[in-house]
Amino acid sequence: MRATPHGGNALGIVVREVAFPPGFGLHTGNIGIKDRTEDVMILSAPPGTTAAGVFTRSRFSGPSVTLSRAHVADGRARAVVIISKNANVATGPVGDANAAEVADLTAQVVGCNTPEVIVASTGVIGVRYPMDRIRAYMHRLETGEEDAFDEPGSATTAATAIMTTDTHAKVAAARAGPARVVGIAKGVGMIEPDMATMLAVITTDAATDPASLDAMFRRVVDRTFNAVSIDTDTSTSDMAVVLASGRAGRVDRDALEAALDEVCLDLTRQLAADGEGAETLIVVTVDGARDDAQARRVAKSIVNSPLVKTAVHGRDPNWGRVAMAVGKCYEDDILAERITIRFGEAEVYPAPITPRVLEELERYLASPEVLIHVNLGVPGDGPHSLETGSFTVYGCDLTDGYVRINADYTT
Amino acid sequence: MRATPHGGNALGIVVREVAFPPGFGLHTGNIGIKDRTEDVMILSAPPGTTAAGVFTRSRFSGPSVTLSRAHVADGRARAVVIISKNANVATGPVGDANAAEVADLTAQVVGCNTPEVIVASTGVIGVRYPMDRIRAYMHRLETGEEDAFDEPGSATTAATAIMTTDTHAKVAAARAGPARVVGIAKGVGMIEPDMATMLAVITTDAATDPASLDAMFRRVVDRTFNAVSIDTDTSTSDMAVVLASGRAGRVDRDALEAALDEVCLDLTRQLAADGEGAETLIVVTVDGARDDAQARRVAKSIVNSPLVKTAVHGRDPNWGRVAMAVGKCYEDDILAERITIRFGEAEVYPAPITPRVLEELERYLASPEVLIHVNLGVPGDGPHSLETGSFTVYGCDLTDGYVRINADYTT
Repeated sequence: MRATPHGGNALGIVVREVAFPPGFGLHTGNIGIKDRTEDVMILSAPPGTTAAGVFTRSRFSGPSVTLSRAHVADGRARAVVIISKNANVATGPVGDANAAEVADLTAQVVGCNTPEVIVASTGVIGVRYPMDRIRAYMHRLETGEEDAFDEPGSATTAATAIMTTDTHAKVAAARAGPARVVGIAKGVGMIEPDMATMLAVITTDAATDPASLDAMFRRVVDRTFNAVSIDTDTSTSDMAVVLASGRAGRVDRDALEAALDEVCLDLTRQLAADGEGAETLIVVTVDGARDDAQARRVAKSIVNSPLVKTAVHGRDPNWGRVAMAVGKCYEDDILAERITIRFGEAEVYPAPITPRVLEELERYLASPEVLIHVNLGVPGDGPHSLETGSFTVYGCDLTDGYVRINADYTT
Repeated sequence: MRATPHGGNALGIVVREVAFPPGFGLHTGNIGIKDRTEDVMILSAPPGTTAAGVFTRSRFSGPSVTLSRAHVADGRARAVVIISKNANVATGPVGDANAAEVADLTAQVVGCNTPEVIVASTGVIGVRYPMDRIRAYMHRLETGEEDAFDEPGSATTAATAIMTTDTHAKVAAARAGPARVVGIAKGVGMIEPDMATMLAVITTDAATDPASLDAMFRRVVDRTFNAVSIDTDTSTSDMAVVLASGRAGRVDRDALEAALDEVCLDLTRQLAADGEGAETLIVVTVDGARDDAQARRVAKSIVNSPLVKTAVHGRDPNWGRVAMAVGKCYEDDILAERITIRFGEAEVYPAPITPRVLEELERYLASPEVLIHVNLGVPGDGPHSLETGSFTVYGCDLTDGYVRINADYTT
């Protein structure tokens, strides 16, 4: 991260103390999966809680994903257990059995049925869980030898317990009338979600039916978590779930969706800014596109380009790399002569670049957040109209730090 | 590059002195496009030369690409002019006119017609050619004030003149009966060709008709230059052309295709090994696929994964990242339980990894060339048969060097 007064990150985020809504209990602790840092988080929800989830589409997705997708299908959940430092992926039938046992053990601790438990796990791929330790730990928790649940639990404590190479806990909160929406997330690498995301757990005390919650959550995830890309790699373990306890009663549907949007977008920006080795948050907005899907493809091409990412890192006003990244989207209605490229407010194409613009640009690239704005200028139906397809994506620069972190992860 | 005794590169390539086939003349020199290093190469071919070319599909492709595609369409060419340090891309109508003038000036120097000239250009995007200098230089060349053409020219000298951030000249040669095939190439970044490639010029004195040469060259490029990926970025200026002078007469068609294959594959490996900042050549072979296209998609996903690339760089036996890269190919017949993953000869999945295998793997990852082999195990029609789709791609590791080079290119 670029130096900030509080030793923070690209966005200058100060991690606040935020509680989950009433009714949500929290336990965090150390099982000893890999080392002595916290590696288990259990979030409990009151009876009657509605739930929805979106999951990775990876063909190598882990047993946690398979099991949780099945468990959330009925729109109900009572607990989320997250084990970190081990993804339990590519571990064969033993791995499947282990994930099922973790759900069982958690159900006993929380006092609910196994199909009401959502299991998530991230960390190294291809290594089995140390089941003896997990069993012993859960047994101590059940018998009261380990401290059990705080209620309402601290979202900040929960977000801290699920971190792997994250540099700070990711928490966000918003209001929807009388109800609160509180979310936590983790993830800094292997992140380009597709239909799903890194780990994110969103809680609310609003009341909602499972079908509405599911539809609303998919829309929100699509424009937030699915719009982040750190390194084009898609995890085997991604999931985002939302739990609605109903304690605050029914709230206006649009207000709830807006609050979910606010929380998920806030977490999305935190995830991008905390990308492995990242020093700069890159926001790419593409508009004037045929439709939102085209805008998204072009925006992803730009935010994923290692040459754009390194140029931002080097504060190098090499805008031609943005043109290159647009150019590799092979679509007939993308024509160089209709395109406008801006960095912040400064137009760099087609307007000729003056030395003054260049100087401004270099200064702008030193900011903790860089906005790249491309208008594709695709003509609309009216005589002077442009198409209105647009999309915004979130990423980060590519640094020596990313290489160092990832050249040396398991060893 | 990893240290090699001769200060070479990942492949330990020693650049040899190779001549073009008889009849091909060469001029190289300095126009002063950016600095005092060589920035122009003109290759002349004898009357009657047959030609074919493949070009970038970028929607921001430069005027050199547009003009050369048109000029080679009739299967004939007499000259290739390559200007480096400036791509002449995103330069508007003035850039179009400048490319046409470069072709004109070259035709006058070589003594051929303008439509017989192929123009290529690489370097920074969005900056106009210094046309005054180009005109003055070409004039001196035409009037004999500058040394004109060596015949046959040195391919090594030509390959050196077209380098940008390349660390060594890329030359390859092979025989097809009495004929020779000699190729040069350049390119170390912004390289994931699609239908085309970085700059490559292949010459031969074999005789062939334009249609056969075109079909043959497209097949060869598809399994060689189109199989290299350094950083997923696709240049606005890529092209590969082949010129056949016919001086050595007709040769066996299969022998000629084999010689073209040999030369283009050799250049492909040199390009991948000399990727910006690269220390290790990564070769990924995928087989047991539904068809070659599926094998190519999976192989590209692996060779392009920044997490796989950094793991190889760190000599980190984190094979789970290969599983992840396979997993993000969302195809129904890719099933984790049918897949085998090998590094070199060592199976890492599904066979459990013993400490001895892990040690071997760490040693293997220190080699200058790392082979990753994935069998998808897609069942074939027979009772015990597997599908035979396969493809091999060439890439390189991701290093601090890549970040440093690209964070500081134009400035």
